[in-house]
Parts: sequence; C-alpha cells; structure tokens
Amino acid sequence: MKRIVDLNSDIGESFGAYKIGNDKEILQYITSANIACGYHAGDHNVIFETVKEAVKNGVALGAHPGLPDLVGFGRRKMDVTPNDVYNMVVYQVNAVQGFAQLFQHSLNHVKPHGALYNMAANDEQIASAIAKAVRDTNPSLYLFGLSGSALIKEGERIGLKTVEEVFADRTYNADGTLTPRSHPQATIEDPQKAIQQVISMVKNGTVLAVDGSEVPVQADSICVHGDGEHALIFVQHLRVALKRAGITVSYPGG
Amino acid sequence: MKRIVDLNSDIGESFGAYKIGNDKEILQYITSANIACGYHAGDHNVIFETVKEAVKNGVALGAHPGLPDLVGFGRRKMDVTPNDVYNMVVYQVNAVQGFAQLFQHSLNHVKPHGALYNMAANDEQIASAIAKAVRDTNPSLYLFGLSGSALIKEGERIGLKTVEEVFADRTYNADGTLTPRSHPQATIEDPQKAIQQVISMVKNGTVLAVDGSEVPVQADSICVHGDGEHALIFVQHLRVALKRAGITVSYPGG
Amino acid sequence: MKRIVDLNSDIGESFGAYKIGNDKEILQYITSANIACGYHAGDHNVIFETVKEAVKNGVALGAHPGLPDLVGFGRRKMDVTPNDVYNMVVYQVNAVQGFAQLFQHSLNHVKPHGALYNMAANDEQIASAIAKAVRDTNPSLYLFGLSGSALIKEGERIGLKTVEEVFADRTYNADGTLTPRSHPQATIEDPQKAIQQVISMVKNGTVLAVDGSEVPVQADSICVHGDGEHALIFVQHLRVALKRAGITVSYPGG
Amino acid sequence: MKRIVDLNSDIGESFGAYKIGNDKEILQYITSANIACGYHAGDHNVIFETVKEAVKNGVALGAHPGLPDLVGFGRRKMDVTPNDVYNMVVYQVNAVQGFAQLFQHSLNHVKPHGALYNMAANDEQIASAIAKAVRDTNPSLYLFGLSGSALIKEGERIGLKTVEEVFADRTYNADGTLTPRSHPQATIEDPQKAIQQVISMVKNGTVLAVDGSEVPVQADSICVHGDGEHALIFVQHLRVALKRAGITVSYPGG
Repeated sequence: MKRIVDLNSDIGESFGAYKIGNDKEILQYITSANIACGYHAGDHNVIFETVKEAVKNGVALGAHPGLPDLVGFGRRKMDVTPNDVYNMVVYQVNAVQGFAQLFQHSLNHVKPHGALYNMAANDEQIASAIAKAVRDTNPSLYLFGLSGSALIKEGERIGLKTVEEVFADRTYNADGTLTPRSHPQATIEDPQKAIQQVISMVKNGTVLAVDGSEVPVQADSICVHGDGEHALIFVQHLRVALKRAGITVSYPGG
Repeated sequence: MKRIVDLNSDIGESFGAYKIGNDKEILQYITSANIACGYHAGDHNVIFETVKEAVKNGVALGAHPGLPDLVGFGRRKMDVTPNDVYNMVVYQVNAVQGFAQLFQHSLNHVKPHGALYNMAANDEQIASAIAKAVRDTNPSLYLFGLSGSALIKEGERIGLKTVEEVFADRTYNADGTLTPRSHPQATIEDPQKAIQQVISMVKNGTVLAVDGSEVPVQADSICVHGDGEHALIFVQHLRVALKRAGITVSYPGG
Repeated sequence: MKRIVDLNSDIGESFGAYKIGNDKEILQYITSANIACGYHAGDHNVIFETVKEAVKNGVALGAHPGLPDLVGFGRRKMDVTPNDVYNMVVYQVNAVQGFAQLFQHSLNHVKPHGALYNMAANDEQIASAIAKAVRDTNPSLYLFGLSGSALIKEGERIGLKTVEEVFADRTYNADGTLTPRSHPQATIEDPQKAIQQVISMVKNGTVLAVDGSEVPVQADSICVHGDGEHALIFVQHLRVALKRAGITVSYPGG
Repeated sequence: MKRIVDLNSDIGESFGAYKIGNDKEILQYITSANIACGYHAGDHNVIFETVKEAVKNGVALGAHPGLPDLVGFGRRKMDVTPNDVYNMVVYQVNAVQGFAQLFQHSLNHVKPHGALYNMAANDEQIASAIAKAVRDTNPSLYLFGLSGSALIKEGERIGLKTVEEVFADRTYNADGTLTPRSHPQATIEDPQKAIQQVISMVKNGTVLAVDGSEVPVQADSICVHGDGEHALIFVQHLRVALKRAGITVSYPGG
C-alpha cells in the first residue's frame, strides 16, 4: 500500500483586526496550506502574509474558496447556483494565485471550504462547477475533496488530479461516509485512537467503521487543525507516529 | 503629433440584482474596458459576463481596482496604507485576470478607480504602491493614470508602460491640472466644445486652459461614460469626429 | 365579506450608488411600505429618504428584514438558526424604527423579505423566531406573511395581529398554497385576470385554483410591485377596479 | 472637586467566528459599556449576548457606532458627509437600543468609535451630525467624547448631557489636547504613573502636561481596555486606587 500522505490545514483565516489560528506554528508541521481567499475569511493583507509564511516553510500553497458569508465563516449552506459557484471559485483561486506568484510560486491545489466543501461532497452539480472552475483556471492544480465524494468523482471525470481527504478524529459508516456529527460516536476523542486510525487508513487503505466492519478508504491527505495548543500537540504526535510507521509526509506531487 | 488615441470606459459596475450602466452599448464604441473587480462595484458573476462581452467586441481588457467601499462606490477617500493598497491591487487585478484567461485573453491594462485614482494622482506613496502591484503582477500591463499625475510618474519610474488619460468634458488649469469640480467652469457642457478639446489634445498635444493660455498635455486615452443615452450619443459623435480628424482609435499596444 | 384591503410594496431597495425601483411613484398608490433594512438591500441614507417619502404620502411604515446577503438580494435560502433569525430581525426592525421616530412616526408592520419570507412560510421554527422578535420589539406591530403560512400561524399563536398576504399575479393550488414558479401556469400574465382574482379574493374570500376548484383564502393585503412602467400602470388599474368593486384600500389598523 | 468617575470600555467587538476581547471579565470592573453596533465590529448575535452580559453585571449600556469598515475595524478616516454620519449613527444606535429593550433596559449613552471619534474631536460638522443623531434618537442619552473636543461642544450646544473622557495611559499637551501617538512620550508605560494621572485628573481637575505645566481637564469618564491580562489587572488596580482616594465609580446619572 501507499507510504506517502499529505497533511493539510486551513490557514490565513484572520480578517483585519481579527485573529484566528496559529498559522506560524501549524505551518511547521503540515505539507499543504489551504489559504482562505477573502469570501468566508481572510483579506488581501492576510493572504499576502500567509503565502509568505507558507513559502518560507516550504509548504505547498492551496486556495481555499468559500461561500460569500463572512459572518457565518462560510459554514452555512446557501442556495447557490452552479454557475455562481463556478465564478466564485474562479475569482477566489485567481486572487490567491496572484499572491503566490509574487513569491515566484504557483498554487498546488484547491480545496473548497466549509459548506461549499460539504455541498460538493454530495451535490454533483456543485461538485462539477468547482471542478470545472479549477480546471479552467489551471488544469495542473490538485483538487482536494472528501474521500469518495462527488467532488472527487467530478474532478476525475474531467481529468483533474484529485486528492482524497480523510479525517483523523471523525468516525466512518460502513459505506465509507463520515458518521454525521449528530451520531454519539461521531468524533474520536482519544488522540492515540485517532493516530491509529490515520495509520490504518494510509497504510492499509481501510478504516474500522462504527459497526465494526472494515471498509476501504482512500487516504491521500489528512486534514489537521492549528487552533489551540491541543491541536498542535496532536499534529506533532501524528508526525512522529507516521514516521515510525514508515510513512512519508509530503504534499501532492512533491 | 500623435494620430492614435484610446477610448476607455468604466464597465462591469453592476452588483447582484443592482444594474448600473449600458455596458453592451458602450462596448461598441470604446477600445479599453476598465472592469470593476468586486471591491467598489462588480461581483464574480458580473465580471464573467463583462469580460465575455468585452472580448466579443474586441475591446481590450483592463482591471479597475477600487477601495473596499461598496456603499460609497469607491468614491470616498480612506486612510489606507501603501502596503494595504499594494495588496488590494494585487488581489483585484489577479481576480479579474482569471476571468480574462477563461476566454484565452490577458489583461492589457490597470486603471485605479474613484478615490484610489484621485489619491494616486497626488500621493506618491499610494501611486508607487499601485505601480509596484501592477508590475509585480504582470510587468507588461499598461498603467492608466491622470495625465501628468504622480501615478504616471511612479509607473514610468519603475519601468511600466503608462497611458495618460484626459477628459473630454473637464477644463484644465494653466499648470495642466484639472480645474476642481467646485470651479464654475469645471465641466464643459457643450458636446461640440468637448469634442474640439479632445481633438486639440490628441492632435496638437495642447489644451486651452481656463485662463486662455495654451498648455501642453499628453492625451493617450480619453475617458468616456456609458450612463444615459446622452453619454452614448456623445461617444458616437466623438468617434465620427476623431475619424474625420484622421485620428485612429485603438487600445494601447493594439 | 370584507370590504377593506391593504396594498403593500417593497421599497427602499436602493443601495449607495445603486438605484432600484420607482419608490416615489409607487408610494402614491400603496398603503403599506415594506422598507428594506440594510441586510439584503437598502442603506442608512436610503432608509432615511424612504421613510421621509412614505410619511409624506401617508403610507404606513413597515420594516422588511432580510437575510444578510446583499449580493443575492436576500433571495437565497441560507442555513440560519432560529436564534440567529430572532436577532437579525430585532436588529433590522429597530434600526428602521429609529428612522420612523425621526419623523414622529412608528412602524406599523413587519414583513420578512425574500428567502426569509419563504422559509417562514413553511418552517415553524423560523416562523416562530420572526414572530417572537417582532413581539419582543413591539407587540402592537402587525406581522405580514403569506396567507395561510406558518408565519401567520406562529404570529397568531403568540398574540400578534397578523396580515395575510395574497398575490395578484400568482396562481394557487387546490390546498390554498401558491403554485411553484416551475409550474407552467405559475403566473397570471393578463392584468385583467389578475385584477379579477384580487377582487374575488378580497370580496368573496375565495380564489379559483389551477385545477378549477374554488378554495378559501384570506386576503388582507395585496403585494404589488413598483419596478417598471408596466407594474405602476397595473397598480393604478387595480386601485380603480377596487374602488368600483366597493373595496376600500387602507393599511392595517388605518 | 468631583468625587465620582465613570469607567468605560469598548466591548461586543467579536464578529461571527471571530472573537476579540475579554468581555465577561472587563464587565466586572467597568460602569459603562460601549457596545459595537455591527458596522466596524459586532453582529446581531454578539450584540444580544453583550447586552445580556452587561445587564447581568449592572453595567450601563451604550451604543458605540463606527464607520462602515469592518476590515479596517473602523479605525481609518473616510470622507463621509455629515448627512451620512447622521444617518449611520441613527441606524446603529437604534439597532442596539432594540436589544437593550429586550432586557427591559434603555441605552444610557453613545460614544463614537475609532476614526469617527477622532474626526468628531476636531471636525465641527461631523461632531454636530453625531450630536444631532443622538438627540433626535433620544435626548436623554449621554454623549461621550474626548475631553474638550468639538463633539463635547456640539453636544452641549444642542442641549445633550455630555461626558468628557480622559485616558489613563496617554499624555497631554499644555493646551489640554492629547500628545500625538508619534510623540516619544505619547503613552504612559508605568501603571502607577497612569493611576496617579487618573486620580489627579478626577480629584483636582488637572493633569501634568508633557512640558511640566499643570493644565485643567474635565475627567468624567476613563476609557479602559479589556484586551489582555495586563489590561485587566490594570483596571483592578485602578479601581482599588480610586476607592482609596475616596472616588466613587459610577456610570453617568447612576
């Protein structure tokens, strides 16, 4: 099985006087940075600083486009049309690509944020709109999506390189989908269990579902968080555990 | 003297359900389109449609970045830092460049909007920030600014190709600056006089100032408007008059 | 049956440099003004001018709160919580009430806008949140909602005076609900038929459904539009027809 | 001399997922809360929670209106007209007043924020617009402004009760104005000196200017901050020192 995995994190989510996240710290441990583009979070000054810091750390740059909902942090589903989604992704990805270019870099990937990510997991039209916006902007970009999602399928269908994302601290159903957050066992609280789940997913390509069955899962990238000391320590432990398990941590194409 | 001039107009200023301007009509008469970028006007859907329509009409594409002030339409001066201006221009120009690329085109120019344009006319630091943002984004872009302004000087200083803009319906002081809007003769109401002024500026490189003196002026591009039937008819008359005067109408580099 | 009906219209939807609607004209024909509050449309200057003009015309003032989605004009459903809806209605209604008070007036009613109106028609929790926000702000306010909707039911349940709204140019199902816009006969194009439908609804309390059956409907207020010359002429004809039918046009409580 | 002083602080500055300040802590030590109104900071949910918490602590409620510049946190001067300022203050004060009323309270004061506060200190027209907006909204509201500022003068001129604000950690010129932030001694770093300055201002009505002269100053309220542990400890020390000096801490009119 595979011996390489990417670690991605959402960064650049500050806005004006408002600070969110420990970007400088988390950038030391991840390989792909999903940079907020100014719609659900981030602003042009934050993007500049975030790109600069990511480049300094050798972390691959990605755009993290979201819905135009700053007060809702892009987490609320909205009735957006596929055409609207196509244009909002083109706009945001190119805006961030402009900052990457200032540092003689290019974006490596695109990962939709929050509600847009969730909608793209199930809604083929939204998924297709995002995939096309990415391809029409730069066909060599990697498209990140939930493992097994509509977004991954639509990305592959139109010829994009896709990266299937898994979660360390979420449990899975027997059909490979995430258990909903309303499920009593939706999240894995024990860091050791979370790390074991990641290693099983990467090394064996399987995950133990909540019903006890072993289900196949594609684990190209693991989503980690930088908020809070707890999260940072988890990522450090995860990196140590991955190394011990003989798994290389690297960004897609890296 | 020169026998070529550009006609530019601000377009793509609609926003969501809000419509401004007669973009389809004015695009038939101009050679350079200044496309609003989503900060003071425009949104990602409007930008898509505007770029598409401009390309269809063979009009050169330009980004028209403004201050982040939708309710003020970017017309109100704000205490922005040069660093902030640099980043807001990078963001906006690249966002619009992304839509140009969808149609296998590239931006030809950048012209700041409203208060940003006015600030860049006099404030060297703001002018320099804009010029650098344009150069760092794409050094082959033309930079539009008020004829004789700080923006033109800063653009030239760092090696950008500049386009000096004049106004058909505004009067000039003996030192080549525009008379302020508070001046009783600030605007030229008679369309024939406005057309004569344009032809003199392009053909002879001079304009008759309000004190009766003849002053030199560089007239690379004329700013025209598409709002209202009156404005459209004026542009049609201007094109006829320019043709009769043996002046070719073409976008910079075209 | 009833011989009184209210005519309401959405006004004050301009924003900064963006103009929408013919507020001055439509205010001459309506009895209740639904004033945009700055979330989906309107700004503080527009609200001032709109309240002033409505007061001048003797039109009852109402707040027209919407979702925080200016670019979508409040027409897109969003995943908002009841608590969020409660607070957004409190905020918007009180802001507009402040302008009414400048003119020694008080708001007479509240009508939610667009997607918020539609969500409140079917979703009891959203309906309840709106009704409570209105009651807690001012229990003497009239609550406008779609005739027979959840919003009307929730308003009545907590003791508010409700106003059931009908549409002149929309057709109805046999159960009293509006036919969806996707239905081939969703809208009534013939102004005479629209006027007849209104008079039947007000005078007889019934409407002819698309299946030919006669269904009861409560018609306290008719929603009319001021956009375009066509709409204004329709309202004028409607007022003449209502007068001929012996129906008084007046705002709730007026 | 006076033996009563108010302690005010800016709170409710969080926005959506973005958190700023230690509102719960600072509310235990202040007597007047300046609540952000949604333009430069705050949102309708934050306002609700902030008003609730302030009421729980017996702190007097105030509206803290700012410029419509969320990304700039209302700290950047903008070219706003007096008419625009009047309407933006009416809008914001009434919106927050609506939440006060939910808790059977009324606003006690209004204090403009950031750039609006600074503009109102020197610009008579802006000062007058704010004062009139406050008076027309509720003539019994206290108007907070920089001690000796144009805002205080305009407030008094139209009959409002005014509250002159002083700063514990800023130094003064011989004419009673604040030394500009560019001055080497602009801020007082030593907490003990800051506390001494406050007590002198309240008790004696004088402050020692940077040139060593003793100048009169009206100290009705002291602006304190809740950001950071340092600031909270300073406020606690200040309260102890005020008590020892026999000075009562109370909100205006309290």
